[in-house]
Amino acid sequence: MIAEKMVGYVKNSSLIRAMFEEGKKMAAIYGAENVYDFSLGNPSVPAPKELEDAIREIISGEDSIFVHGYMNNSGYEDVRKTVADSINRRFGTKFDQGNIIMTVGAAGGLNVIFKTLLNPGDEVITFAPYFGEYRSYTTNYDGVLVEVSPNYETFQPNLKEFEEKITAKTKAVIVNTPNNPTGVVYSEETIKEMAAIMEKKQKEFGTDIYLVSDEPYRELVYSGVEVPYLTKYYANTIIGYSFSKTLSIPGERIGYLVIPYEVADSEMVISAANVANRILGYVNAPSLFQRVVAKCIDAKCDVEAYNRNRELLYNSLVEMGFECIKPEGAFYLFVKSPTEDEMIFCNEAKKHNILIVPGRSFGCPGYVRIAYCVAYKTIENSLPGFKKVAEALI
Amino acid sequence: MIAEKMVGYVKNSSLIRAMFEEGKKMAAIYGAENVYDFSLGNPSVPAPKELEDAIREIISGEDSIFVHGYMNNSGYEDVRKTVADSINRRFGTKFDQGNIIMTVGAAGGLNVIFKTLLNPGDEVITFAPYFGEYRSYTTNYDGVLVEVSPNYETFQPNLKEFEEKITAKTKAVIVNTPNNPTGVVYSEETIKEMAAIMEKKQKEFGTDIYLVSDEPYRELVYSGVEVPYLTKYYANTIIGYSFSKTLSIPGERIGYLVIPYEVADSEMVISAANVANRILGYVNAPSLFQRVVAKCIDAKCDVEAYNRNRELLYNSLVEMGFECIKPEGAFYLFVKSPTEDEMIFCNEAKKHNILIVPGRSFGCPGYVRIAYCVAYKTIENSLPGFKKVAEALI
Repeated sequence: MIAEKMVGYVKNSSLIRAMFEEGKKMAAIYGAENVYDFSLGNPSVPAPKELEDAIREIISGEDSIFVHGYMNNSGYEDVRKTVADSINRRFGTKFDQGNIIMTVGAAGGLNVIFKTLLNPGDEVITFAPYFGEYRSYTTNYDGVLVEVSPNYETFQPNLKEFEEKITAKTKAVIVNTPNNPTGVVYSEETIKEMAAIMEKKQKEFGTDIYLVSDEPYRELVYSGVEVPYLTKYYANTIIGYSFSKTLSIPGERIGYLVIPYEVADSEMVISAANVANRILGYVNAPSLFQRVVAKCIDAKCDVEAYNRNRELLYNSLVEMGFECIKPEGAFYLFVKSPTEDEMIFCNEAKKHNILIVPGRSFGCPGYVRIAYCVAYKTIENSLPGFKKVAEALI
Repeated sequence: MIAEKMVGYVKNSSLIRAMFEEGKKMAAIYGAENVYDFSLGNPSVPAPKELEDAIREIISGEDSIFVHGYMNNSGYEDVRKTVADSINRRFGTKFDQGNIIMTVGAAGGLNVIFKTLLNPGDEVITFAPYFGEYRSYTTNYDGVLVEVSPNYETFQPNLKEFEEKITAKTKAVIVNTPNNPTGVVYSEETIKEMAAIMEKKQKEFGTDIYLVSDEPYRELVYSGVEVPYLTKYYANTIIGYSFSKTLSIPGERIGYLVIPYEVADSEMVISAANVANRILGYVNAPSLFQRVVAKCIDAKCDVEAYNRNRELLYNSLVEMGFECIKPEGAFYLFVKSPTEDEMIFCNEAKKHNILIVPGRSFGCPGYVRIAYCVAYKTIENSLPGFKKVAEALI
């Protein structure tokens, strides 16, 4: 028999992933062009040309044993330096390679940092709506995920409730901005208030509270919006970054952690994260793609394509009568369900081969997430279906 | 402060990895050609030519969004079918893609399967000498690693003690053949006896005992030695494979699990392993390299190069008076220390810039591991140093 803990995980297994699988089945039945799968955050824009050039250059020009071999568990020194330099250049920080640990995507990085920090029973606070996997990443290490309820007006964090929920057991706070599923970017004002609350509570309880920032969508912002770099606002900040969305390579599993020297017990945290990266079985981030991202450190996929999708879908849905905050980043719309139970909305959409994810997967029932990282044509072709859903439910 | 569990992990952090880092520092001081680093199992033979051809073909010929995108958490269906077909062709088994989960190397696969199976306090039995990381992979899930002491004559498993150590809490047995650190291949006779003992104990306790076979060295065998395919001898067998050594790509983190339908509760185990692969933060095995290994499924690095190293080092050391079983596979010699405390041997070797790993890292003090996956010239140049060590200690 499998582990008892896993029984629960399997039962509550990711609805998003289940829909992704269902979408593939539906595509086989109805034809891919007749299924409008908005379920998964799988980039629809190809990787930038620089990426394929980089792969070719590396395998032609560098030694096979070096490119595909083991290196320090934290990653190649030169790659980590390139990453640190890039962050410093863009955000005015002062990191060096010792602050960077290359990881198996942001998901790998978050697991590494929670393994590093959490004792059983330690609390991790997150703000609803939030990426559902945070619950697993926390309970993997016997931590307890504490949800702060949504601020429905702006989907900025609910800071009053946040302050109330910090306890002596709060070990970490995890934020995700630009946010999955809302597309909201936390404002500088929000970040400053949040930092002040955490500083105050650290003093009150005599504890260290680490702010963990999950940043796969940092580069996916529209209309010139700035995303504050959190290490500049709060000393105990650790960044988990992924190149999945920036370079359209989510399958390659490549990202990094930034652990500043300003973090409490930084030397221990950095050493332990290096060890955690190894013993969790990652061993190291994939070697070729470490070298590839270093060569493409300033490259980006075609963010404008997502912007076009955003404009079309947002404007169309609002015109049909749906309610939604206009996202400033990421590639999701978080739409208020016309029915109190958003499953009715999801099921009605499915009648028209439209797959969308219920908000309860993000700790926010009554809403749905629509991932618009799809072909422009898919959005165009889905609109008559959305129109019928609107007619049925609004 | 970091997690209490991590304090211990950091303190007892891998001696092998520490030596690898020390070797790089020594190389910077003395020149790489004057340091004989036998510490790490990092392949010294380049990846086969097919591998680079496969990379070029895939990035030129296949859709970027497909190649670098998300797929089923267990891996691309066609890749898993190719893997299953290859195993069936070579070993006469009857697997299909449903039995295969692509993983982040064998280390990732072992973590997935222990996460899937272990309840806190469950016991995992291993045979000394063994790869030290098994301890972390077990304790990551609050399991207890139970060591069976070495059989110093043959380094085949000590089956009498094995039988005595199986209890009602034994959830898994992990074997590694060809073995790290001894290079010994467990014989068919050994496997049959081991299977009979486990069958008997399963009946006695009314439990399921899973045999987990860690197989990164399966393809690295010499003189035509056969490595039995364990699923054919014991129904409850799960294989963890890695392409790291076969294709000389340990940094790329690509391997797979085989979970046969004959395994107890196979449907649950397969579902849970799929979920564990996701929630542990691997999400999926690196996508490009899934497609690469499928294209190179029958390719191998130049095993003959390792065989030449084996012959030179084994014959030279034995001639100098060292005692050692001649390895039939992998790329390690496990040499008896001339001094009872093998640290004296290691330190004496280090005086001559020779880095070797004490046997205590493998649960077998009094021995040392010499990883001969190095350039032939490195072995040649190290021999005068070994000779001086022999003169000092034997």
